[in-house]
Amino acid sequence: MINKLCIIGVGLIGGSLARALKHAEMVNHIVGVGRNIESLIKAKQLGVIDSYSDNIAEAVVDADVILIAVPVGSIKGVFSALRSHLKSDAVITDVGSVKGSVVLASREVFGEDYKNFVPGHPIAGTEQSGVEASFAELYRGQRVILTPLESTDSRAIKIVSEMWQAAGAEVTSLGIEHHDEVLAATSHLPHVLAYALVDTLASVHERREVFQFAAGGFKDFTRIASSHPDMWHDICLNNKDALVDMLKRFTVDLNKLTKAIEDGDGDFIKQTFERAKTTRDQFC
Amino acid sequence: MINKLCIIGVGLIGGSLARALKHAEMVNHIVGVGRNIESLIKAKQLGVIDSYSDNIAEAVVDADVILIAVPVGSIKGVFSALRSHLKSDAVITDVGSVKGSVVLASREVFGEDYKNFVPGHPIAGTEQSGVEASFAELYRGQRVILTPLESTDSRAIKIVSEMWQAAGAEVTSLGIEHHDEVLAATSHLPHVLAYALVDTLASVHERREVFQFAAGGFKDFTRIASSHPDMWHDICLNNKDALVDMLKRFTVDLNKLTKAIEDGDGDFIKQTFERAKTTRDQFC
Repeated sequence: MINKLCIIGVGLIGGSLARALKHAEMVNHIVGVGRNIESLIKAKQLGVIDSYSDNIAEAVVDADVILIAVPVGSIKGVFSALRSHLKSDAVITDVGSVKGSVVLASREVFGEDYKNFVPGHPIAGTEQSGVEASFAELYRGQRVILTPLESTDSRAIKIVSEMWQAAGAEVTSLGIEHHDEVLAATSHLPHVLAYALVDTLASVHERREVFQFAAGGFKDFTRIASSHPDMWHDICLNNKDALVDMLKRFTVDLNKLTKAIEDGDGDFIKQTFERAKTTRDQFC
Repeated sequence: MINKLCIIGVGLIGGSLARALKHAEMVNHIVGVGRNIESLIKAKQLGVIDSYSDNIAEAVVDADVILIAVPVGSIKGVFSALRSHLKSDAVITDVGSVKGSVVLASREVFGEDYKNFVPGHPIAGTEQSGVEASFAELYRGQRVILTPLESTDSRAIKIVSEMWQAAGAEVTSLGIEHHDEVLAATSHLPHVLAYALVDTLASVHERREVFQFAAGGFKDFTRIASSHPDMWHDICLNNKDALVDMLKRFTVDLNKLTKAIEDGDGDFIKQTFERAKTTRDQFC
């Protein structure tokens, strides 16, 4: 049971966790923090949070757990704003899709490894954003990856783990670098490809017609291109090395496949497609 | 009302049309043709077809409409097999995702533009295949593109249009080359990208883990990589020029985006993502 939870960034991710924890009766009071007061008023009206503030320092002062659910590029600023106002045993966690840069930011702000900071990443979401899109079941059966450091307090890890479990998630641990490489492959690369594809098609001469004849497969394929541009801008820049590495690997493979199509190399095409289908059918 | 419909290739596409036409009471008798007798027996057991044959010549002899629903690369062989056995007013149509190569094949086999052949393409499907995956509602509210020639008989176009309309589809006409360009962009390119992505990830060192941490967005994004490899092999080779053109345009754009990420060019990244999101939200 968490007495006071402070959620900084009450959007799809923060709002959905708030709803789930309230539903599970795992929290007494949730204070929401954000820059957009209208959105916070909306969140209170929806019953997602109990109170709100646009002042981080004020809001965290008696919080037991602080969840930072802002785009990755804004997390360091949040660390700086809350640093001097925490209770000594307050637990901080985040939901950033990149962990290396967040841990680096925590070191830069707190001066050393802050033992009550548990870096986290729920592998869940939709292409929607904002508190209106939040729902209590978002994390049910989904994974949350924690990337604690050696110095992270086990009590803090336990509190964060139990919080996510109460929302229905399965909690796993990964090394920081390992997390960033795996996510570059399964999440960051597909998002960049989806954005790039839609942008390429948008530049095609008869673009209205192109989209008019798009079928269900296309809509599924491009759904993630409706994700929040600011959030994904931050992710790309904060996981640059792993992402660029995956993009280059993909481009090499795509060029080979393009050449095979151009050369009419049916065997190469068929083998590639069969391998891909077998892999996807096995794992998805 | 069609008295006798012959469906060559009773899989997801052919089977779903058969179910829809039976449901709409638009056909008296459906004969299914295929090489896999077990699959035809299954189709009859499921009530999708009324009779079956593994012999095209026999099956088409008294058919009023012949629907060819085999992979694009096999259509020419089907034309050759049925050519000498048709009723004089029998209408032929197909469901190939490429139209230029199919029309070329029809000219090669029939010696001239066969006035009762109506090239067609339903913009519908799932990543599943086989008659077991077929369902009557597949075409409801979806588009079917016809690419008739100047010489195509208007009676034949009317019969094929009414057949698809009875299955709930909206029928449109496009020029042959235009169809192939539009579909290269919205369907063939995304399929190649999905296959290429899954194949790239399959070659990553810890592939089990990579897929284990894939979220819903990834599953949607790669769904089309579970499509039938033979069918997509044929499509790639038969729409090579338009597809390779789109692949090259996409690769140029992706390389620019990769470079922007590598260089930390946040403005370029954000503008690309915003353009893509705006376009998708507008059209999908």
